[in-house]
Amino acid sequence: MLTDAQRERLDLVLVSPRNPLNIGAAARAMANFGFHHLAVVAAFDPTWREARSAIGALDQLNNAVESPTLAEAVAHSTLVVGTGTLTYRKPEQPVVALPDLAPLLAAEIQRGGRVALVFGSEKHGLTRDDLSYCHLLVEIPTDPAQPSMNLGQAVAVCLYEIAVRSQAAATVLAETAPADLATTAVSIPVPSDRIEILANVVEQAMQAAGYSPRAMEAANRHDLRLLLRRLALSHADTRRILGIFRRILWRLKRDPLSHDKLE
Amino acid sequence: MLTDAQRERLDLVLVSPRNPLNIGAAARAMANFGFHHLAVVAAFDPTWREARSAIGALDQLNNAVESPTLAEAVAHSTLVVGTGTLTYRKPEQPVVALPDLAPLLAAEIQRGGRVALVFGSEKHGLTRDDLSYCHLLVEIPTDPAQPSMNLGQAVAVCLYEIAVRSQAAATVLAETAPADLATTAVSIPVPSDRIEILANVVEQAMQAAGYSPRAMEAANRHDLRLLLRRLALSHADTRRILGIFRRILWRLKRDPLSHDKLE
Repeated sequence: MLTDAQRERLDLVLVSPRNPLNIGAAARAMANFGFHHLAVVAAFDPTWREARSAIGALDQLNNAVESPTLAEAVAHSTLVVGTGTLTYRKPEQPVVALPDLAPLLAAEIQRGGRVALVFGSEKHGLTRDDLSYCHLLVEIPTDPAQPSMNLGQAVAVCLYEIAVRSQAAATVLAETAPADLATTAVSIPVPSDRIEILANVVEQAMQAAGYSPRAMEAANRHDLRLLLRRLALSHADTRRILGIFRRILWRLKRDPLSHDKLE
Repeated sequence: MLTDAQRERLDLVLVSPRNPLNIGAAARAMANFGFHHLAVVAAFDPTWREARSAIGALDQLNNAVESPTLAEAVAHSTLVVGTGTLTYRKPEQPVVALPDLAPLLAAEIQRGGRVALVFGSEKHGLTRDDLSYCHLLVEIPTDPAQPSMNLGQAVAVCLYEIAVRSQAAATVLAETAPADLATTAVSIPVPSDRIEILANVVEQAMQAAGYSPRAMEAANRHDLRLLLRRLALSHADTRRILGIFRRILWRLKRDPLSHDKLE
């Protein structure tokens, strides 16, 4: 089992849940397996908030964080894991089967990271935009004839697997490579909001360099986010690249003519 | 993963479920993990039957078997596994943590057995009488502060674990001891209804030998069932013991005086 301190480093994020009962079911599963941090992004039915003030409500519900966007909910996460059925999609990130997930999460938590496990709405799962915030995707190995799980049950299965199977992996890891994990400063994971700041600066630079704001809206922004996450940048990398793009941006904006000429 | 044929040898049994939604949730989890045989014992709210005839209802619901007693539901099971929180009980059977269950079930299925996984009602779990039909108990490793799981979530977690973790174990077993499993005739598992017949004959013999029917009612019958299951009798054992007790019973009944004298 994970230690209590390790469990503190996992956030469960529900994006646009439609049914308040499912928020309650997710909170119950969290309590069963000793996880505490629930974030709800843009809930469809806001009545779930009433349940929070009820006597006997779980701490996980009382303390749940509401965020308008997934970007805010995972701002401090260094590893964002999306969940869902991938039957009808071609994933752009690495896909891990749930039975293989625990060692990855344990390693991330051990090197000082913070993990977000993200579930989409009951009806559509995670949207393409949601997925662009994810470093990797996890798939529960279900029967192809009935792949789609109930949200509360999917949460329970994932948290069970992570709680039960993470420690052995974490222990092995600590025994084999303690020096690497503890001392290499550049391997400190980069929280999601730093990547987002970088994405914004790069985007501004692209626009200043002549990309039309409209072209940046959907596809490009999406690809940019995925690219930056795929790079697995260190803190130092992030600082350096941010510096470069800020300088480019400042330069492009100082000289409006060069901008206009390109349009 | 288990093969389709292996999955056919597992029955999911819900004893006295109170909420029809939970029966549906259990059926959904079964479909997700490729299990087909659902048995419902003495459902509190019979309205769940209506859901079965609905268009698009799962086969697991349509084909669910209703039994008035747990004894009937597990009649053909050679290994009956009870589930639940054991915080407030002193279990009389061996207790296995869920992460260790899969190899046991795989072994039982491989030697030609049939497994029943039994869940009690949402409110009370399995009763002491229900537990007397179980060969072993499985415990989901939950947080002591919130040990009790939602029924649908508990079913999902158990079936996930069994579906995902059984094959590796079954393969190892087949490689290490194929001869033992295939050829030893006495190791063919004894279905639960044979044990029940034996328990009844032993009980009749005990009454005929002077135990009052009232003394047999609760505690003794319970202990007798547990004892017979703990013995892990082979088919040949069962036949032999049954023969002995039938003979004793016949003898005791032929001579009513010896019976009366003892009372």
